[in-house]
Amino acid sequence: MITILGLLAGALTTISFIPQVMKTWKFKETKDISLLMYIIFFTGILLWFSYGILIDNTPIIVANGVSLVLVFIVLSLKIRYG
Amino acid sequence: MITILGLLAGALTTISFIPQVMKTWKFKETKDISLLMYIIFFTGILLWFSYGILIDNTPIIVANGVSLVLVFIVLSLKIRYG
Repeated sequence: MITILGLLAGALTTISFIPQVMKTWKFKETKDISLLMYIIFFTGILLWFSYGILIDNTPIIVANGVSLVLVFIVLSLKIRYG
Repeated sequence: MITILGLLAGALTTISFIPQVMKTWKFKETKDISLLMYIIFFTGILLWFSYGILIDNTPIIVANGVSLVLVFIVLSLKIRYG
C-alpha cells in the first residue's frame, strides 16, 4: 500500500514533464525556462536514481530513471532554443 | 553515507527551483512554462512528502517539504502571469 503511494508519487512527478516536453517541442520557445534549474535538477535526478539503487527502492529507481530522459529532453531543447 | 547521497540528491532537486523562482519573479514572464507540468508536479511532490513520512525517510521528507514551497511559488506566478 505504501509502495503504491510511492509509485503514484513517482508517476506524477515523472509524467509532469511530458506536457513541458510537448509544449517546448511544439512552440520551440524556452526563454522563460531557467537553464540553471534544469542543469541542477538533472544532476539531482541522477543522484536520486543512484540513491534508489543503493537502498533498493523501486519507486525511486523507476520514477527517476524515466525523469532522467524527460528532463534531458527539456534541457537539450533549452540549450538549443536559448 | 547512503543517506548523505540521498540528502545531496534532495538538496539538488530542491534548490534547482530557486533559479526558476528568481527568474520568474524578476521577469514576470511564464509563457514558455507548462501550467499542467506544475500542477501535476506539485501534486506528485505532495505524495512524495506523504510517502517519506510513511516510510520515515529523512531525505525524502526534507527535500519534498522544501520543494512544495518553491514549486508552489512558481505555480502561483504561472497562474498570475499566464
